[in-house]
Amino acid sequence: MEQITKFELTQQFHDRFQQALSARDKSFIAATLEEVNPADITALLYEFNSEESKFVLDLLPVPVRAQIINDLDTDTRKKFLTIYTPTELTEIINQLDSDDVADILNELPIQVSEEIIGNLEPDLKLQVIDLLRYDEHVAGGLMAKELIRVRANWTVGECLDEIRKQAETVTKFYTAWVVDDKDKLLGQVSLQKLIVSDPKTLVENICDENIVRVGTYVEDREVVEIMKKYDLESIPVVNVQGQLVGRITIDDVVDVISEQVEEERQLMSGITEDVEENDDLWKNVRARLPWLLIGIFGGMLSARFMGFFQQELTKITAIAFFVPLIQATGGNVGIQSSGLVVQSLASPGYLEEGLWQRLIKMFYISFLNAFLLSLIVLGSTYLFFNNNRLSVVVSIALFCVVMFSSFVGTITPILINRLGFNPALASGPFITTASDLLGLTTYFLTVHVLL
Amino acid sequence: MEQITKFELTQQFHDRFQQALSARDKSFIAATLEEVNPADITALLYEFNSEESKFVLDLLPVPVRAQIINDLDTDTRKKFLTIYTPTELTEIINQLDSDDVADILNELPIQVSEEIIGNLEPDLKLQVIDLLRYDEHVAGGLMAKELIRVRANWTVGECLDEIRKQAETVTKFYTAWVVDDKDKLLGQVSLQKLIVSDPKTLVENICDENIVRVGTYVEDREVVEIMKKYDLESIPVVNVQGQLVGRITIDDVVDVISEQVEEERQLMSGITEDVEENDDLWKNVRARLPWLLIGIFGGMLSARFMGFFQQELTKITAIAFFVPLIQATGGNVGIQSSGLVVQSLASPGYLEEGLWQRLIKMFYISFLNAFLLSLIVLGSTYLFFNNNRLSVVVSIALFCVVMFSSFVGTITPILINRLGFNPALASGPFITTASDLLGLTTYFLTVHVLL
Repeated sequence: MEQITKFELTQQFHDRFQQALSARDKSFIAATLEEVNPADITALLYEFNSEESKFVLDLLPVPVRAQIINDLDTDTRKKFLTIYTPTELTEIINQLDSDDVADILNELPIQVSEEIIGNLEPDLKLQVIDLLRYDEHVAGGLMAKELIRVRANWTVGECLDEIRKQAETVTKFYTAWVVDDKDKLLGQVSLQKLIVSDPKTLVENICDENIVRVGTYVEDREVVEIMKKYDLESIPVVNVQGQLVGRITIDDVVDVISEQVEEERQLMSGITEDVEENDDLWKNVRARLPWLLIGIFGGMLSARFMGFFQQELTKITAIAFFVPLIQATGGNVGIQSSGLVVQSLASPGYLEEGLWQRLIKMFYISFLNAFLLSLIVLGSTYLFFNNNRLSVVVSIALFCVVMFSSFVGTITPILINRLGFNPALASGPFITTASDLLGLTTYFLTVHVLL
Repeated sequence: MEQITKFELTQQFHDRFQQALSARDKSFIAATLEEVNPADITALLYEFNSEESKFVLDLLPVPVRAQIINDLDTDTRKKFLTIYTPTELTEIINQLDSDDVADILNELPIQVSEEIIGNLEPDLKLQVIDLLRYDEHVAGGLMAKELIRVRANWTVGECLDEIRKQAETVTKFYTAWVVDDKDKLLGQVSLQKLIVSDPKTLVENICDENIVRVGTYVEDREVVEIMKKYDLESIPVVNVQGQLVGRITIDDVVDVISEQVEEERQLMSGITEDVEENDDLWKNVRARLPWLLIGIFGGMLSARFMGFFQQELTKITAIAFFVPLIQATGGNVGIQSSGLVVQSLASPGYLEEGLWQRLIKMFYISFLNAFLLSLIVLGSTYLFFNNNRLSVVVSIALFCVVMFSSFVGTITPILINRLGFNPALASGPFITTASDLLGLTTYFLTVHVLL
């Protein structure tokens, strides 16, 4: 048993397995994988090509095969499933929950998915057709149709009978949802409560009516916030008539959170496509180019701008020495400010501080930082460059740059958020590019006026 | 019912509530909050000071009060609980699960927590004392002691009796853990299976033995990875003897993920303390200063370095014009490369690409990007600045900068990860500061050699 937690893909095992694969050694492969958890087999398959993976999967029982295919990430699966015939796919897909089926069908070419839908088991077919109507980023697109539904006028005994009946198709449930005879959601009864109650008790007497629900149209981000806030392991989804149409479980929420994290990380790194390190070359190049081009454009603007101050620069070359200092500080201050705003936008839940409160606080913080940094720069430029006037000018410019950049860093994510985009966009190259231009302008204007 | 999902804190409600609070209008407050979900009351309390919040909480039933205090974030709670007497705290804490009790006790001054432990209910006391031994970032620190434990030689009927007995203290369970008579974990039986099985069946006959478990010492990050990978809603925790000592549920995992996300966001924004926008002024200043100072130090180095090329600069001032372009591109390339590496380090699960494979791929990607960008810069500098030689020098330097920065951006997070730190550290001001220095050096050396 203990080996389950310890299954680790070593290079040796990988090589031995590859060898067996090349030799199409069915008995070795089947024997090796018999006791292994499907999630570990999924991990293993990422190492082999599609044909090899299919060869391995075909040696496994259909339910295990289905679970593994379900566990693959979207991109890999999309590519992988092209080598399956619709008949093979139907057999696999019949094993899955409705929400997973809908996800997979959405990845297939329309003719293939139509053919598969036609051959699904009748119950699953109806459920899947219903689910396919929803966008994947709303509650309707996240929910599964499999759930335990009981009537308020049933007894606990009748509920337990119903659960026994449904136990084959519905897995992982902790709650029975209570509906009236028009399917309107009234509340919930936990499995636990059903077990400890007298079988003759009426459900309506032990039903918890004070429950949180979401409409089919609610955005996935909001579903995540609600489930986190109320600490729910599952949430019922209702249509506009208040009828129970599905449920979302916390493992779906964990997946949504992971996607959000990836999206934010990419925005903050200036990557414009959903790309991974091991995606192909062109996709990687394409995902990086846009922000690099914007950066280049900003750099060309800076160069033109500095051209206006050629006279000053020729007179005192040392002015140029401090361009990197000004730029780096502007960029750092901008990123820090926007990072903190993005953070408070990402964990809402209580009344937001007003824009003014935020700006005033930001003002004090940056004033203190600006003051300290300017003093340090004043001291060290004086020590190292022996030019009083230049030292004063650089530290005054730095002071202004810190103030401006932190203003821009605070306000940009708020604006981007109000426009309906992900505020993390403001926390990447966007803010450094803006701070660069702003910093340079401030510096040269200060030089022009004071030197 | 429906209002539960719709509870939103409006300014009007806030003002009306504040008014009632100032007037100490107990009946209004109690009436308003009666039907409100505790999680919404928690959100409301963030708006008021500690005395006011305590006044509100004292009007609520003890279990609700306990849940709200449990829901507060650590910093807020730490401050808030100082106005409670140990007796009041004991009353509240007696309502909570062992893992939450341990978390709260860890936040209190040692004398207070000792006094509370002395007055806890006997069962809870033993559980809590056991939990306090573990660091909060390992499985032992995450787990709760409340779980359903059944013996392999019991019948299903006996299990259901045991569950009825424990149902008061153990909430939210979906699984009974099966142990032998030495408490060694043998497997699990889902509630669902217990309900559908004949009461006379022996547990060992329906026990699922093929389960994943973690040791008390396993790090929280790893627990998260395991639960995500195997799609578990709870995981048993065992000691070195293989005895069952606790369980971790998926809602704890969601909390750990949220903390990880915050930590990564802070590292990527160059914030060095766990700080929020609405924390106090000094904490905000302090969290920002270190990276700003490092940036300033880098800027001073750059200034000194450019000093060596004063001759060149005096001859051709335009050399200085392209410093921002070189720096911005270096920074962007560095952030992009490290962002992608951080991403693949954050979602492990299959055999990692080797260092060489990574570097070779990185080489091709940056070569393509570098080539395209240099061409563009060559064209536009020629157009706008009419200086052939300078155009060539700038674009050659840019080419080198893109190559170097993407190398540094790829290798740094890998190194930081191998050293045992969070690789996201490499994706913030660290990489921009490094790229700045690297870019400048490359540029001026190219200028020196070629111009």
